[in-house]
This record gives sequence, C-alpha cells and structure tokens, in this order.
Amino acid sequence: MRRPRKLGREVALVGAGMSRFGMFKDKDSKHLFAEAFNEMRSTVDKGIDPQDIDALYLGNFTNDFFIHQGHWGPIISDLVGLTPKPATRTEGACASSALALREGVLAVASGFYDVVLVGGLEEMSKRNTEEVTEGLAMAAIPYEVKAGFTFPGVFGATATAYFSRYGANREHLMNVTIKSHNNARLNPKAQFNVSIRDIMDQKIERATRKGEPVPEWTDEKEFLRDPKANPAVAWPMHLYDCCPISDGASCVLLVAGELARSFTDAPLYVVGIGQGSGRGLHAKEDLTYFEATRYAAQEAYEVAGLRPEDVQIAEVHDCFSIAEILHIEDLGFFKPGEGYKAIEEGLTGLHGSKPINTSGGLKCKGHPVGATGTGQLVEIWKQLRGEAGERQVPIRDLRVGAAHNLGGTGGTCTFTILERR
Amino acid sequence: MRRPRKLGREVALVGAGMSRFGMFKDKDSKHLFAEAFNEMRSTVDKGIDPQDIDALYLGNFTNDFFIHQGHWGPIISDLVGLTPKPATRTEGACASSALALREGVLAVASGFYDVVLVGGLEEMSKRNTEEVTEGLAMAAIPYEVKAGFTFPGVFGATATAYFSRYGANREHLMNVTIKSHNNARLNPKAQFNVSIRDIMDQKIERATRKGEPVPEWTDEKEFLRDPKANPAVAWPMHLYDCCPISDGASCVLLVAGELARSFTDAPLYVVGIGQGSGRGLHAKEDLTYFEATRYAAQEAYEVAGLRPEDVQIAEVHDCFSIAEILHIEDLGFFKPGEGYKAIEEGLTGLHGSKPINTSGGLKCKGHPVGATGTGQLVEIWKQLRGEAGERQVPIRDLRVGAAHNLGGTGGTCTFTILERR
Repeated sequence: MRRPRKLGREVALVGAGMSRFGMFKDKDSKHLFAEAFNEMRSTVDKGIDPQDIDALYLGNFTNDFFIHQGHWGPIISDLVGLTPKPATRTEGACASSALALREGVLAVASGFYDVVLVGGLEEMSKRNTEEVTEGLAMAAIPYEVKAGFTFPGVFGATATAYFSRYGANREHLMNVTIKSHNNARLNPKAQFNVSIRDIMDQKIERATRKGEPVPEWTDEKEFLRDPKANPAVAWPMHLYDCCPISDGASCVLLVAGELARSFTDAPLYVVGIGQGSGRGLHAKEDLTYFEATRYAAQEAYEVAGLRPEDVQIAEVHDCFSIAEILHIEDLGFFKPGEGYKAIEEGLTGLHGSKPINTSGGLKCKGHPVGATGTGQLVEIWKQLRGEAGERQVPIRDLRVGAAHNLGGTGGTCTFTILERR
Repeated sequence: MRRPRKLGREVALVGAGMSRFGMFKDKDSKHLFAEAFNEMRSTVDKGIDPQDIDALYLGNFTNDFFIHQGHWGPIISDLVGLTPKPATRTEGACASSALALREGVLAVASGFYDVVLVGGLEEMSKRNTEEVTEGLAMAAIPYEVKAGFTFPGVFGATATAYFSRYGANREHLMNVTIKSHNNARLNPKAQFNVSIRDIMDQKIERATRKGEPVPEWTDEKEFLRDPKANPAVAWPMHLYDCCPISDGASCVLLVAGELARSFTDAPLYVVGIGQGSGRGLHAKEDLTYFEATRYAAQEAYEVAGLRPEDVQIAEVHDCFSIAEILHIEDLGFFKPGEGYKAIEEGLTGLHGSKPINTSGGLKCKGHPVGATGTGQLVEIWKQLRGEAGERQVPIRDLRVGAAHNLGGTGGTCTFTILERR
C-alpha cells in the first residue's frame, strides 16, 4: 500500500496570461508567447522582475514536426530574458503544458526553485489540414490511425459507445456545443467568440444579401441538425462537435507559497496535482471512460484533501463535445451515464451549479495544443479572482477551481486543483 | 541576491542500465528501452517490483520527426507495465534525458513520489545522413544552420576559436580521440569498441589481403593525420573527431534517500543537479566556452557543497573532440586554456588523476541523443560501485562522479553529481 501523495511545500499561482487563440498567419511562436508573457506580467499585482524568475518549463507538441524547430526551452528563455537560467520543454501531446505546470509545481515544492515560469505554445495553422492531421496523429498509436482512428474517428467511436451504454444521442452533444459557443461569445480571447445563434444570423444575413435561399432554422438545434450547416466528420462527430486548429500561447507564474503575497494580494494555491497515463484504444476494455483521467483525478483529490463536490468550477478537455461529457463523469462531478443529463439540465452552464468550460473550452476558445493546459489555468485564475468580466460565474464564495487536460487518445491526462484563500 | 539552491529531501540512484548503443535496423525504440530496463532491474541488488514505481520521466529528441511517433511517455509506461501511472517526456535536444533525470530528482525531492524511473531513448539510424542532419539541426537556430552551422560546423568554428586563443592545434584533438577509443575498446556496450590501433591493424590487414598498397602509419596520430583515413568534415573537425549516428536507450531508478538501502547496499546519492540555458551562436561573445555549462556547474556545485576538485571522475558531452576540451574547463576541472594540456599529459585517461569519459564518451560509446544523459549516469554508476570491469579506474576511495550533458549548440546544459556513501 503506497503512502498518500503530498507536496513538500506550498506552491502559489500569482500571475496568468494568454495570447488570443486563433489562426494567425502573421504571428510566430515567439510573437504569441510574448503576448502571453506580457499579459501574465500585467496580472502580477505587485509586479514581477523577470530577473527573479529561476526557471522555465514550456509545453509544446508539434513545432519540431510542423515548423522544423525543436528545443524550444532556450528559445523562449532567451525571448523573456532568462538566459542562462534553465528551460525545459515537456511533451505529452495535447497535455504538454499541463505537464510543464506539474514540473514547475514539483520544482518549487522540492525547495529547489522559488519562482518558476510555466507556459505552452503551439503554431499549427501554417500547415494544411492533412499535414495537421498527420502531425496530431503522432500522439496516437500509428496502426490505430491507419485503421481510421484519427482523432475525430476516436471520439466518434467513443460517442457511439457512450450512446449505446447510456441512451444519450446527438441532441445531447448539441447541448455541449451550444453552451461552449455561448460562453466563448463572452471571451474576447476565444477563437470563435460567437454564439451558435450569432452564426445562424450571419448565415441568414449573407444568404439574404446574396439573394440565395434563406435557411429557416427555428433554433440552434435545428441549425446543428442541418447536414449542410453542420456536416458529419466522423459520425456522430459533426463539424460543430470538433475543436479547431489554432495558434496560441499561455503562461502562469508559480512561486513558493510563503512568497505569494509579495506578488499579489489574491494568490491562488495549487492544492492538487494529478497525472495518469493510458494505453492505446486496442487495450481499452471500455470506451466510455478514460482510465488516465480517473487516475489523475484520484491523485489530485488525495493531495488536495478535497472531493469532486468541492470543485466549484472547472475547465475540462473538450477536444470534442463527447469528451466534455465523459470527463465530467471521470472527474467525479457526475455519476457515469449522468453527465449528459446534467448538461441538458443546465447544471454546467455559466449560471449552473457546476460551471464547466466558462472560457468556451477547447471547442470555442481554441486548441493550440501545447498552450491549452496552462490556458485552462488562465480561465480559472480569472474566475477565482472575480476578473472574468461578462462571463464571471455568479457563485458566492467561489474558492476552488480545477483544470483537466488530455493528450492523445487518453495517453496522458492531468488534473490540477487551485484554491483561493 | 537569491538564496542558495537546495533539495527538499535526499534522492538516491539505486539501479542503472542501458541497451548496447549502435545502429540497429532490426530494433525499434521499445526494443531498445526494454533492453535498458531489464539491465537496470538486474542491477537493483535487492530487487524492484515494477508495481512500486510511481512515475516515469523519459527523454527523447527526434522520434516524432524521424519515425513520426510522438507522445512517448505513455508508450514506454505501457511497455514496462506502469499504466495508469504518470509518464512525462522531456526534450532538450541532445540533453533530453538529463532533463528527465532532473525532473525525476525534483519529483522525489518534493516529497510527491518515492520511486521514479528515468530514462531516454532515440532511434536515429533508420533515416539517411541528410535527414538525420536536418533533424538534429532542429536543436539549433534555423538561420544559423542555413548559414552552414550544422553541428560539425559549429564545433569546427569553436575549435578554431579555441586554437586561436590558446595555441592548441589538431594534434591536441587527436589526444581526445585516441583516449576515447582506448576506453571504448574496454566497453562492450560501446558502438565503436575498438582502439585507433585496432582500426589501423584492421585496415592494414584488409589492404594486405586484397593486395592493395599497405598504409605505413607509424602511430595513431599519423593515421589520424592521413586525409584518406580521416577526412575533414568541417575543419578542423575530421571524421574521427565526430560522434556517430546511434540508436539506443538507457535508464536509472531514483528513490527517496531514506528508502535507498531497501533497494541496494551500495546506493549512489544525487547530491548536485544543475541546468543552464544558452543563446544562439550569433549572441555568443566568446566561442571558447559554454555559458550554460558554467551556469549548470555552478548550480550543481552549490547544491552539493562540493568543488570541481572533489569530482573524481566524470562523463562529459564530447559530441566532438573539441567539446570535451571546452567542457572540462567550463566545469572547473582545469583552467581555461589548460584543458588540452591536461589531456596531453594523460590526466584525463583511465589511469590519470581525473578520468574523463571512461565509457568511451559520445564519440565512441555512441550518441543516441535522447539516451545519452542517463547513459552517462550508467557509467558513473558502474565506476563508483567498482563494477566497470576492465575499464575500472584505479582511484582509491572513489566516491564522487559527475555527468555533463549538452543540447543543441549549448542551448541546454546540465551537470549532475553523484556520491557513494
């Protein structure tokens, strides 16, 4: 029987920033990271001198493959003026910067460093869709990809298994999509900061202007059911079930707990970290959950001494609409088979009892894969500090938020719990 | 003024193993890692149940580019039976597994994990030389590579700067090469386990057998001066100044200090870790040293409370012969400009006062880049425990050894100090 996990000393999060996420032909990785870094600096209320940063951890997945540049640690270290201090890249596919976060937390908790910059970046839109699909598939098992299990294929199969087991259907996936767009509409950093209703209005206006037949959708679901508006990608995953290809960067500043209040009066504490690994699809006994997510969650709850019901708000890895449903179950927020009902009842909406992906999630905020993990923390930072603007959740005494990140077909999953004190 | 670095608790190294390094068309990364893992297990005197391993850190540089497979953490986690426990890949070009080692050390020192597997792997020989050159160049700055600064180019320029400053010449580089081969001749895991003398004899025998003109080299240096036997690659780097393209894997087992003796009666303790980052060549004021190596060394000595003269034996990153000379100066073993003289005097040989690269080094043991960092520790493990066989150094009371690893053109450097107690 192993002993309970614990951290050697407290670790606080005292700043967080991100670039806008989107497809930017005119911005490279350095440009994007500079945007994130500058915003992070502006959020450290009492200021941070870059000279005081001891080390950098940086998540990136595909830059060596897509833009033929690896070894990003020292490049970003140089960019933000840290050289000759250490810089380490972590890679866990779409969870790459959540791994960086964990290493930053462990480095501070170990007593070795006091102030650590953690971030992620990805530059995906300069390649065409086929190349991006090929690159992302490196996160999965090659023979599974060749058999059709690109990521839409994987999550399509996941959704059909879930439907079959629990009686859910496409209408339930649409609830996720509609919510994601409604939240992203209120997030100026989001790649798609428009509601489904906005998109419908735009399409109607365009058809009218061009003298084309005007679609007569009565509501968002009718729009999402329309195969011309929302074509199938890998059934039941349709276009609006899938996150986009994105460029972006994000970062957070970690410091030893005892130093937190010299950086800000409203620090967050990293009270729980968890990480798990998973095997390929061929080895899964059941497609309706992710073993690595469950392991990561259990570890993080144990470290934090918290239960799922203590987490008031969370960002979860909704690379596809079905993923959000599975993860809120795997994280213990809802029982297996109950996640889709909770979403239908509005419990996970901005005004629900357990708001999920208030940022718009990967689906609408965007998914520059290496930047997603720390990007999720930027949202939790804003919400827990009451700085989320129009999308601020109205929960009274909001103190505990969490972020869940997934890489590959569940090969790597992380769960991080933050607490405001 | 920052506080001195320290680790929250002691970390011990209780097992170490590596595959043979070489070019293996019939072995993939998993096969190679399995070799290393199985050897590591056999070295843990009191046994290790893989179930007791809490996490994996794995260094790899080029597998996504060369064999289109990324996300190696969970693949190797699955291979050695750790799933669903966490697995994290680190990348710092040729220092990738030294970064994994550091993260493993910090994870144990933080109190989070007690038993951590750390390793590295690389599979390079399935691509042709041009592709490998292109892939490795991703570790450098793209416009510098286009200007001719492939790695032989970089170290060629480094050597001419060093020659110019300190009066060294090619003959001094040859001393490094001859020593490396002499050591590797005694290392059955080495890619080139032959001395220069062996190579000369083979070539003479072959010429004799074929009735071709028999070369009349009087000694190793005459062989190395012969442009047909040892052609220039990027002057003054000749063929025998350069490390080969290699496949291989290596790993070590780290445990909390207080648990060490339940694994072995002869543990090593990780008493010093250091890491630095460096900028591109264009930003270097002086080509005759590596700022990142100096930073890493200073950090590691501070943590260990040791001085360079306390390190009795070391593996250093000799990707090219000149690199060994610079690094033994940067690490403080010899004064700037004195390294080549120390080698000439035999101080760094197997029977010298400060043996360097007893394994044969990258030059002759081989350099499967992601496997090199932990591979260096395998040699220090053997030497400090008196298990290095024919190449065991005869130093009395051998207790302190170290390993230095470099990535890119000095973008990432690490230094690790091990002590037997």
